[in-house]
Amino acid sequence: MVNVMIDELAWTEYRRRVVDERQPVLIPLGALEQHGPHMSMNPDVVIPSAISGAVARNIGALVAPAFAYGAKSQQKSGGGNHMCGTTSLDGHTLSLALKDVLKEFGRHGVRRIAVINGHYENLPFATEGVELAIQELKWSGIDDFRVINISYWDFVTQETIKKVFPDDFTGWDVEHGGILETSLMLHLKPEMVDMSLAPIQAPAKFPPYTVFPPIPEWTPESGCLSSPAAATAEKGQILFDVTVVGISDVLKHEPWWQPS
Amino acid sequence: MVNVMIDELAWTEYRRRVVDERQPVLIPLGALEQHGPHMSMNPDVVIPSAISGAVARNIGALVAPAFAYGAKSQQKSGGGNHMCGTTSLDGHTLSLALKDVLKEFGRHGVRRIAVINGHYENLPFATEGVELAIQELKWSGIDDFRVINISYWDFVTQETIKKVFPDDFTGWDVEHGGILETSLMLHLKPEMVDMSLAPIQAPAKFPPYTVFPPIPEWTPESGCLSSPAAATAEKGQILFDVTVVGISDVLKHEPWWQPS
Amino acid sequence: MVNVMIDELAWTEYRRRVVDERQPVLIPLGALEQHGPHMSMNPDVVIPSAISGAVARNIGALVAPAFAYGAKSQQKSGGGNHMCGTTSLDGHTLSLALKDVLKEFGRHGVRRIAVINGHYENLPFATEGVELAIQELKWSGIDDFRVINISYWDFVTQETIKKVFPDDFTGWDVEHGGILETSLMLHLKPEMVDMSLAPIQAPAKFPPYTVFPPIPEWTPESGCLSSPAAATAEKGQILFDVTVVGISDVLKHEPWWQPS
Amino acid sequence: MVNVMIDELAWTEYRRRVVDERQPVLIPLGALEQHGPHMSMNPDVVIPSAISGAVARNIGALVAPAFAYGAKSQQKSGGGNHMCGTTSLDGHTLSLALKDVLKEFGRHGVRRIAVINGHYENLPFATEGVELAIQELKWSGIDDFRVINISYWDFVTQETIKKVFPDDFTGWDVEHGGILETSLMLHLKPEMVDMSLAPIQAPAKFPPYTVFPPIPEWTPESGCLSSPAAATAEKGQILFDVTVVGISDVLKHEPWWQPS
Amino acid sequence: MVNVMIDELAWTEYRRRVVDERQPVLIPLGALEQHGPHMSMNPDVVIPSAISGAVARNIGALVAPAFAYGAKSQQKSGGGNHMCGTTSLDGHTLSLALKDVLKEFGRHGVRRIAVINGHYENLPFATEGVELAIQELKWSGIDDFRVINISYWDFVTQETIKKVFPDDFTGWDVEHGGILETSLMLHLKPEMVDMSLAPIQAPAKFPPYTVFPPIPEWTPESGCLSSPAAATAEKGQILFDVTVVGISDVLKHEPWWQPS
Amino acid sequence: MVNVMIDELAWTEYRRRVVDERQPVLIPLGALEQHGPHMSMNPDVVIPSAISGAVARNIGALVAPAFAYGAKSQQKSGGGNHMCGTTSLDGHTLSLALKDVLKEFGRHGVRRIAVINGHYENLPFATEGVELAIQELKWSGIDDFRVINISYWDFVTQETIKKVFPDDFTGWDVEHGGILETSLMLHLKPEMVDMSLAPIQAPAKFPPYTVFPPIPEWTPESGCLSSPAAATAEKGQILFDVTVVGISDVLKHEPWWQPS
Repeated sequence: MVNVMIDELAWTEYRRRVVDERQPVLIPLGALEQHGPHMSMNPDVVIPSAISGAVARNIGALVAPAFAYGAKSQQKSGGGNHMCGTTSLDGHTLSLALKDVLKEFGRHGVRRIAVINGHYENLPFATEGVELAIQELKWSGIDDFRVINISYWDFVTQETIKKVFPDDFTGWDVEHGGILETSLMLHLKPEMVDMSLAPIQAPAKFPPYTVFPPIPEWTPESGCLSSPAAATAEKGQILFDVTVVGISDVLKHEPWWQPS
Repeated sequence: MVNVMIDELAWTEYRRRVVDERQPVLIPLGALEQHGPHMSMNPDVVIPSAISGAVARNIGALVAPAFAYGAKSQQKSGGGNHMCGTTSLDGHTLSLALKDVLKEFGRHGVRRIAVINGHYENLPFATEGVELAIQELKWSGIDDFRVINISYWDFVTQETIKKVFPDDFTGWDVEHGGILETSLMLHLKPEMVDMSLAPIQAPAKFPPYTVFPPIPEWTPESGCLSSPAAATAEKGQILFDVTVVGISDVLKHEPWWQPS
Repeated sequence: MVNVMIDELAWTEYRRRVVDERQPVLIPLGALEQHGPHMSMNPDVVIPSAISGAVARNIGALVAPAFAYGAKSQQKSGGGNHMCGTTSLDGHTLSLALKDVLKEFGRHGVRRIAVINGHYENLPFATEGVELAIQELKWSGIDDFRVINISYWDFVTQETIKKVFPDDFTGWDVEHGGILETSLMLHLKPEMVDMSLAPIQAPAKFPPYTVFPPIPEWTPESGCLSSPAAATAEKGQILFDVTVVGISDVLKHEPWWQPS
Repeated sequence: MVNVMIDELAWTEYRRRVVDERQPVLIPLGALEQHGPHMSMNPDVVIPSAISGAVARNIGALVAPAFAYGAKSQQKSGGGNHMCGTTSLDGHTLSLALKDVLKEFGRHGVRRIAVINGHYENLPFATEGVELAIQELKWSGIDDFRVINISYWDFVTQETIKKVFPDDFTGWDVEHGGILETSLMLHLKPEMVDMSLAPIQAPAKFPPYTVFPPIPEWTPESGCLSSPAAATAEKGQILFDVTVVGISDVLKHEPWWQPS
Repeated sequence: MVNVMIDELAWTEYRRRVVDERQPVLIPLGALEQHGPHMSMNPDVVIPSAISGAVARNIGALVAPAFAYGAKSQQKSGGGNHMCGTTSLDGHTLSLALKDVLKEFGRHGVRRIAVINGHYENLPFATEGVELAIQELKWSGIDDFRVINISYWDFVTQETIKKVFPDDFTGWDVEHGGILETSLMLHLKPEMVDMSLAPIQAPAKFPPYTVFPPIPEWTPESGCLSSPAAATAEKGQILFDVTVVGISDVLKHEPWWQPS
Repeated sequence: MVNVMIDELAWTEYRRRVVDERQPVLIPLGALEQHGPHMSMNPDVVIPSAISGAVARNIGALVAPAFAYGAKSQQKSGGGNHMCGTTSLDGHTLSLALKDVLKEFGRHGVRRIAVINGHYENLPFATEGVELAIQELKWSGIDDFRVINISYWDFVTQETIKKVFPDDFTGWDVEHGGILETSLMLHLKPEMVDMSLAPIQAPAKFPPYTVFPPIPEWTPESGCLSSPAAATAEKGQILFDVTVVGISDVLKHEPWWQPS
């Protein structure tokens, strides 16, 4: 199986793929964030990394080292940045870091980048980084640089949702540490999940606003925003496959993505 | 009717309200952004300003001058920042500006601030500003400063949605320049809407990802993401009332919001 | 009367004016700052906004939303940033915000911008914003972008000064909350002035240096730096007219300002 | 004569003066800026440095190394930043540099700093640096840190102006490279002035606004904004003495300046 | 074997180790940088990560996710940042990112951090991040936070150098992609080294200065600064063991490192 | 003797040298840092300034005003930034300041700059400033701008080391306030050295890592990292001559340095 991990290639091979084969680059964007007492703090890195790897092998692309730290966790989507273990960057720092890395790939000759995001709160700051990088690359005379921003759960189809959440789907927002992420981790890294510690709880209910500093009691004590108890490795595989297929399809077939 | 606009008060009266009466401050957060050929570019300022005024009169609060410029428009929620007329700040600039203003209110003695947001893309950068302000105010010895972040549409109830969108509600995301905002403007500033120019079009359909630079053709030519043709002033009044009542209720009754 | 307010136009109309008619844009730059016990805190916004509107109608230009918050008040020109009510940005934040907005107008196709300043302390930081915007627009290939920075009081002629300050003119510096601004507000927004509360006091005298943190006792208790007692709406009209005529003349007739 | 130059002292002697004797520190703030064809580009450094030295010897204070680069020259006060030779910092860079240095002196135990400014455009950005340093020092528990900002020409008395400019005084603004600075340099560093090259010209006349980018023709070809032809070393001595006496008086006698 | 990887622990277990057991945290600091045609681009991540893991298991500590991107490569220590494949952050971005992460660990209750650096150019910018984090943590009332900065090669003893470089040791500076790193990779990740592609070349010779932009010809075509041909897995083991033992010794025994 | 100091030239003469004669510019980079009880705090400014002057006269170049403040002192190379007297900039501030100054020289027409560094800790942050300036100058269309970064001690030859340190040379790192700098100061500014106060001490020994905040006891009480007792003016002359000759040779003869 061809190695798609940029950091595991010699630079000469990397150059061949990027310059001669014009391969695109996928950047997994994660976070170090609590995900409940039953699971490691790295699902936001593990899941987009695995998806990126599978997509890259499907379409002939490369995978950059994942961003291991992400933007500050918000209470209604990640429990909040007051939680112990959650280790975040200021949003602006994330923007700058992604901007720097994108500019470097542009310098190498890469013209197509897919940001594969695994942490809800990253997206706006990643977008700012993308916009700034494109601006500066244009100033450097590179005006055919294109970036696609993907949050992997947006590729879970309605059909899959019905399969995975047979009873009721209460929305991606409270899926933090719930069935989605736990199933994917059971599929990808079962050794990092201990279902015997999976909390059984009703989905967190939040008011239609946010308070700062967070009121700690509003986050369920487990840190999960919904119960992962119904998670299974099978569901994880279904979720993984549908996102990998969906993303691969876009990158393989959309005409605006193909190198000019 | 008592004047609640901070900028229209003498500083001595402002001081009385903030220091003696411990009134909270509401900050409308807007944008200068195209909203279709039938409507002015200021709904993201006009609507939260009007809501803030009404809420402030309901609960005995003050309203700060609105932020007239907001974070960069995104294609799937505002048409995109390539559109002519849309005039945006870098997200980081918005964070710094809100941070500065919040710190100033903290210096005056204000301890409760509600950010009333009218522009979808502002929220994460406003949140960063809030988090940074709270950090710095703590460094200055002020540790009872509390901010609530509200996007007004989150107070539109399911019941109201059924009334306002009898046929089908396709989500807040494509409501840019659509029935929600147009109805509210017809209610609040009818002179800034010309329904004869309201585009008739199907709701914009976007793929589950975003591309940078935006592909201009993906944004409907009108700049609206759904048709405002069914907007009416009556719907605007219903929407306005439900958000004003909802926000007023929270700020009047929630115990964690009352001054300590 | 043609509407010149950018935020009140539909983007299609804005585009027509900017792209087809090549109209310049005026940006009122204000502040939220105490101006004495007899007057609202918004004269630095109200006055340049009204001037901008009148000039724009005279010359066929557009007016951008005013900057409602400005650079930190200084003791000898605005009472000082320790005053309650005064709500300021860091100078650097103002520079960034103006830079962002100028770049956006440049992107739309605007090539002539007049910054109409109403807050003494804004000017150097606005200038920095202008210089940075011009630099970045050049990097983007736009090299015919021109900005004129105007503080409206610099257009008050000697003749007018003699009329408005018959006894003695002690300089613009101590005119904070004095005859100049109060008269203009009596002309433009009389409902925001209560002359019965106008302090009677000698002009503030400051030493030829500045101290930080400010020594609060050096600022007159009223917050005004000179007495507004002799202010009248008639003087306000005279002042308003002379600045509007003066600025209009420049923008209408100076050859270097006409679109290339 | 006691050495007052911080950089020329051993750290042990510096510590004795600062910690044991509680001496204040003076920081000359200059620029590298064209000052006409008849004079070196360093008067904004040389003059405040000499004044600082004399004041320090008068009152028992120390002099920090001068800031050799200042904020961007403006056309109406320094000819403009398009001039060859003028070498400036962004205003924000100057703010940060002064902030850093002030914090360091605060760490050493210094509690009184006088910024002695020789470059008109520096002042607002220096002020921002001072305000930020005071804020951060407070966060570090140092709340008796006081800074006085002085532009030396503000200590030239009316009486002296009459002596030095017998014909007519057209204002400090056009004194760039004129009688004031040239006389002071003739007194302090005659070898850096060549009066045979002093341009004879009418004072520059500028309109009541500023244009960016500068229109080069508006700056006199010499770079001077008024003629230095009437400058003499005697006038320089008078100017030097009056500023040194004036500043020394303030720092020696004002009670709020004495160490608490 | 106890799991020491923070990201692989549930937050509840992490909290137990940090709060109850007061374990220190090790942060591997790496880079994505070309290291010759015979080796992957990740040795600066792989090596300090492996060392951190071994040390953590020795002393009862935790390992944070590695920083996968580092400061810009310099020609004389890493070939230069013009090389294809090398993907770097601005130094300031790295400072901010490390500052943010350190502050987060401080918030959790961690009081001892070891930065284990694998990329020469990181150190000064990491140091700046450490200094800024300590300053801000102090502002937050945390004044017993201590960080140790380690570049692993500084723990290679003279005795080991003699063993590993029997002929001649030309200095750490030209060891980029040479015997040190290649041996360690052969020990830790042999699958990422292909010795058949190891360049045979004299150590790069650089003049006693640096030129920008780099003159590409000064970097050996391979990207290595010395020949890795004499690298072996045995040498790698020796190098690995000596650094792990050395670092473990410090962290286990030095009194100033033990929790207060 | 021709005057090479930029700040002592009139701008017209500066322009002639830069534009007509295409002279390069040397920028001495220093610091305000304790250097032991026997010596002033300015050797990092005095030495590179003197070297720059001599080199400039040798090769026909100009010398810019020295940077009087440098990056934060580190314990193992400068005693540490906790020392009284040491007065430093944040590294990022230094980067910005150098970036600004380099861009200005580029605007004037200068195409070759030598940064002559006298403070160990400056180099990485100066490098960042150089890299950023080159990037922005390219965006401005200037792509033949070249900078050489020199730390003067790197031009001391092995032969000279043997002469100057007959007993033993323990490395540049502990030469802070030792024989190297003290001898050079005895040669250049003997009035700033008092050999009767020169501490006699063994070279400081530091462990192979750095701790933050610094442990003050690790720095010798004198602030010197090795004894300057064997310093002489003769050694200073030797050191001065060898660096001046070495640097002059490079700048006079290397083909890549000559103006294109």
